[in-house]
Amino acid sequence: MVKKLTPMSEDFNQWYTEIVQLADLADYSPVKGTMVIKPYGYSIWENIQTYLDKKFKETGHKNAYFPMFIPKSFIEKEAEHVEGFSPELATVTHAGGKELEEPLIVRPTSETIINHMFAKWISSHRDLPMLINQWSNVVRWEMRTRLFLRTSEFLWQEGHTAHATKEEAKDEALQMLDIYEEFAQNIASVSVLKGTKSEMEKFAGATTTYSIEAMMNDLKALQAGTSHELGQNFSKAFDITFSDENNKLQNPFQTSWGVSTRLVGMVIMAHGDDKGLKLPPELAPHQVVIVPIIPNDKNKATVMEEVDNLSKTLSNYRVLVDDRNEVSPGFKFNEWEQKGVPLRIEVGPKDIENNSLLISRRDVDDKQDYPIGEAKSKVGSLLKEIQENLLNVSKSNMKNNTTHVDTYSDLIDTLNNKKGFVSCFWNENREDELKVKEETSATLRCYPLDNSETQKSVNTEKKQGKFAVFSKAY
Amino acid sequence: MVKKLTPMSEDFNQWYTEIVQLADLADYSPVKGTMVIKPYGYSIWENIQTYLDKKFKETGHKNAYFPMFIPKSFIEKEAEHVEGFSPELATVTHAGGKELEEPLIVRPTSETIINHMFAKWISSHRDLPMLINQWSNVVRWEMRTRLFLRTSEFLWQEGHTAHATKEEAKDEALQMLDIYEEFAQNIASVSVLKGTKSEMEKFAGATTTYSIEAMMNDLKALQAGTSHELGQNFSKAFDITFSDENNKLQNPFQTSWGVSTRLVGMVIMAHGDDKGLKLPPELAPHQVVIVPIIPNDKNKATVMEEVDNLSKTLSNYRVLVDDRNEVSPGFKFNEWEQKGVPLRIEVGPKDIENNSLLISRRDVDDKQDYPIGEAKSKVGSLLKEIQENLLNVSKSNMKNNTTHVDTYSDLIDTLNNKKGFVSCFWNENREDELKVKEETSATLRCYPLDNSETQKSVNTEKKQGKFAVFSKAY
Repeated sequence: MVKKLTPMSEDFNQWYTEIVQLADLADYSPVKGTMVIKPYGYSIWENIQTYLDKKFKETGHKNAYFPMFIPKSFIEKEAEHVEGFSPELATVTHAGGKELEEPLIVRPTSETIINHMFAKWISSHRDLPMLINQWSNVVRWEMRTRLFLRTSEFLWQEGHTAHATKEEAKDEALQMLDIYEEFAQNIASVSVLKGTKSEMEKFAGATTTYSIEAMMNDLKALQAGTSHELGQNFSKAFDITFSDENNKLQNPFQTSWGVSTRLVGMVIMAHGDDKGLKLPPELAPHQVVIVPIIPNDKNKATVMEEVDNLSKTLSNYRVLVDDRNEVSPGFKFNEWEQKGVPLRIEVGPKDIENNSLLISRRDVDDKQDYPIGEAKSKVGSLLKEIQENLLNVSKSNMKNNTTHVDTYSDLIDTLNNKKGFVSCFWNENREDELKVKEETSATLRCYPLDNSETQKSVNTEKKQGKFAVFSKAY
Repeated sequence: MVKKLTPMSEDFNQWYTEIVQLADLADYSPVKGTMVIKPYGYSIWENIQTYLDKKFKETGHKNAYFPMFIPKSFIEKEAEHVEGFSPELATVTHAGGKELEEPLIVRPTSETIINHMFAKWISSHRDLPMLINQWSNVVRWEMRTRLFLRTSEFLWQEGHTAHATKEEAKDEALQMLDIYEEFAQNIASVSVLKGTKSEMEKFAGATTTYSIEAMMNDLKALQAGTSHELGQNFSKAFDITFSDENNKLQNPFQTSWGVSTRLVGMVIMAHGDDKGLKLPPELAPHQVVIVPIIPNDKNKATVMEEVDNLSKTLSNYRVLVDDRNEVSPGFKFNEWEQKGVPLRIEVGPKDIENNSLLISRRDVDDKQDYPIGEAKSKVGSLLKEIQENLLNVSKSNMKNNTTHVDTYSDLIDTLNNKKGFVSCFWNENREDELKVKEETSATLRCYPLDNSETQKSVNTEKKQGKFAVFSKAY
C-alpha cells in the first residue's frame, strides 16, 4: 500500500509535512533546521532554474560566484541591514586548525561582498550597467523550520545590478519582477499579485521592495519572490563610484532580486489536494507515467513492445515507464497520483486490441480512451490544458477568496474570521500596520501595481489610501 | 593598451597569476584564500557543468542537495578520513545568536552526511543501485592558495553511489572515470592518463582510487578528476544495509567521484601561451568574436549591417560582436587574443567589397580570407579543427615530455633534472615512494590502466613492477 496521507481538508499543516516526505521531495537532516532535497524535489528546482536562468541571460545578466564567507566587519558596515539579520547569522570562528582573527559570517545574502567587489570593478559609466546573478546556498538560522519554506540553509538565486540612473534601476527591478510573475503564472501555474511592499515590510536596505504574492490552498499568502530598488544605499556604504560622461564621480543606483527553493513549497501548497501533489507539466520531473498492465506472462512481450513504442513516440516529453514487477498497477496509480504526475497512460492487452490508450489526468477527474495513433498530439494538448487549468484554478481561488472592505473594523473582523486575502484602501502608516498585525496576525502583503486608484482610507479619517492587500502569510 | 602579460616562457607562475585576472576569469576576495569567479570564468564552469550533468543523467544519476553543515561527530566517525582533513576544516561554533551545543563542520566533502541519509533510504536490494550526484560548494582551508587550483572554498560535483555487488561498484567507478576522460579529451581538448593511484596517494576512505592526470604547459602534472571504489568502508561505518534477494542483510559496495573548478585551471595551464588563454571551442564563453572595422563614419552603416547579418548567420555558435567605439580594433584584437577566443572575424569596407571575411585562429598563427557565403560552414569546420588541434598538441606535449627509465638512479636523476613525466616499472611500496618524494618532490601520479604489463621494477631488486608514472604536480 502507498502510505496514507492526512487529507489536506483535515489538517493542512500535517498534510504539507507528510506530502513533502511521502512524495520524496525532501527529508530531514541530522542538523536541526536543515533539509536534504531529494532527487524528485531537486528536479523541480532544476526545472525552475532552467527557465529562470535562460530569462536572466536573455535580459543581459551574467552568472558569477562569490565566496560564502563574509568578514564580520562587512556585515557591520550596513547597520540597518545587520539589525535585520543578526540572530540569523551562522559564524565560523575556527579554521585551518586555529581560531580566526576575524570571525567569518556564512552569507545570509551576498549583498555586502558583491558590493565590495563592485567597488573594485566599476570605475567608468562604460562599466554600467553591471548585471550579475548568482545561484548559491545561503544560511539564515531558524528555530522553527518547515521544509522548503523556512530552513536554516536554502538554495536561491540573487541578482545584483548597478546602473547610472535611478530610472534604469527602477526599470531593472520591475523587469525582474515581471520575469518572476511570468514564471509563477506560465511555468508554476500560480496566479500572483505583483506589488510594492509597505515601509514596514520592505527590505531594510531598499528604497522600494516589490514582491509577488501567491495564495496557497489554505488561503494564506506566500511571498514568492522579491525585487528591490536599493537607491544609492549600498553604493554609498561600499564606496562604489563611476565617472559619468562628464567625468564627474557618481554613485550608481542599484537593484537586487531573488527567489529560492521556497518556490517548491509554493508549488506544493498552491496545487495539492487530499490525494497529494498536482504538478504543473512545465515543472514536473515526469510529465507522463506509463503503466503497463500485464494480466499474465503471455501478454508481457506484446504489452512491453507497445509501451516501448509509446515511450519512443513521446520522447519529446519527460516520460517515465514504471515497469516494476514487485508492485501492482493499483499501487503505481496511487503512488504517481500522490507524486502529482500530470498524465498517466495505461497500456494493457485490451487497449492494444482496441488500438487505444487510457489516459488519466491528475488535475481533474478525467480518464479517457484515445486512439494510439494520436498519442503524441493528445499528450501535447493535454499537458497544455493541465498547465492552463491549474493556473485558472489558482486565479479563481484568489479571486473567490479576496474580500474587499471599506472600514477598519471590517478589516479586522474579516482578517480574524475569514480565511483569504482582504483588500482595502490604506494610508501608509507603520503604527496602524503594527496594530493590524497585533490584532489579527495578518500583514500588509503589498500595494498591487495594477491598481493605482486612491480612495478614502480605512485607517485614517479624511485621508486617502492606496489599494492594499492584507493576509496571514507564510 | 591591453595590460601587458608576463610571458609564460619567462615565469609560468607569474603568467598564471596574471592571466587569471587579466582575462577576467577570477579575482581575489577580501577573505584570504577564497576567490570570486567572474562571469567569464564562471561561463567556462557552466559549460563544463552542462556537459557533465548531461552525461551523469544519461548514465542514470540523479541530482540532489545535502546540507553543508555536518555534525562534528559525523566527521569523527570515519577516523582515517578525519586525519586527512582535520586542519582543513572550517567550524561554525555560533548560530542563532548563541553558541551551538555541537559545533558544525562546513562540508569538506559530503561523504558522511550522504551516507547517513543512505542508511535511512536504503533497505532493500530494490533500492539499489542508488546513484546520486550533487553540485555544490565545499571548504578545505588552505594557507597557500592559487586561484582555481587551491582555494579554501571551491565548487565541485560529488557523485555518491551504492551497489549490491563489488563488481557493479567497480564498473561504476570506471564508467565515471571514462566520462571524465571523455570530457578532458573531447571537451577540454586535454590529453589525460587514466590510472590507479598508489596506496600512498589514494583517498583514505577508498579501496581503490582512480584518477585522470593531465600535463600542464610547464610540464607539471595536474590531477583533474578522481573516482573511488569505497568497498564497504562507509556502508559499515554508517550502518547502511539492504536485504538481498534471499532476505539476507548486506552492506552495499560504494563509489564516489568528483571534479571541481580546478578544471578551469587545467584549461588555462594546458593550452595557454605567451599571449594569454587559448580556449577550446566547446568551453569558450565566446567561440567567435566579430570586430567591425570602420575607417570613417560613412562606412559605418554598411559595415554594421554586414556584421549584423553575419552574427545572425552564425547564431548556432556563441558569437560576440565587439562594437565598442571607445577602443581601436587593434586593442580588441589583443584583448580577445588574451582572453583566448578561438576565432576572430574582421569585417571592414574592403572585405565587404571583396565579398570576403578575414578569419583568424587563436590556436595557430593563421589568418585567411573566406567568401562571405561560406561563413557558416567555415566557422563550423574551423572550430572543429581548433578543438582537435588543441587536443593533438596536448597529446604530443605529453608524449614528447615523458621519459622512460629502467633504473632507480635514472628515475631520481630524471625527476630532478628534466621537466615532465617519468615512467618506469614500480613495485608498490610506500617507503620507496616517500623516498622518491623526499629526493625529488615528485609523486607517483598513477599506474596507467592502458598498460598492464609487468617488468623488473626499478625500486626492488628481483621484483616485478607495474608500469607507473611519476611527476611533479599541482
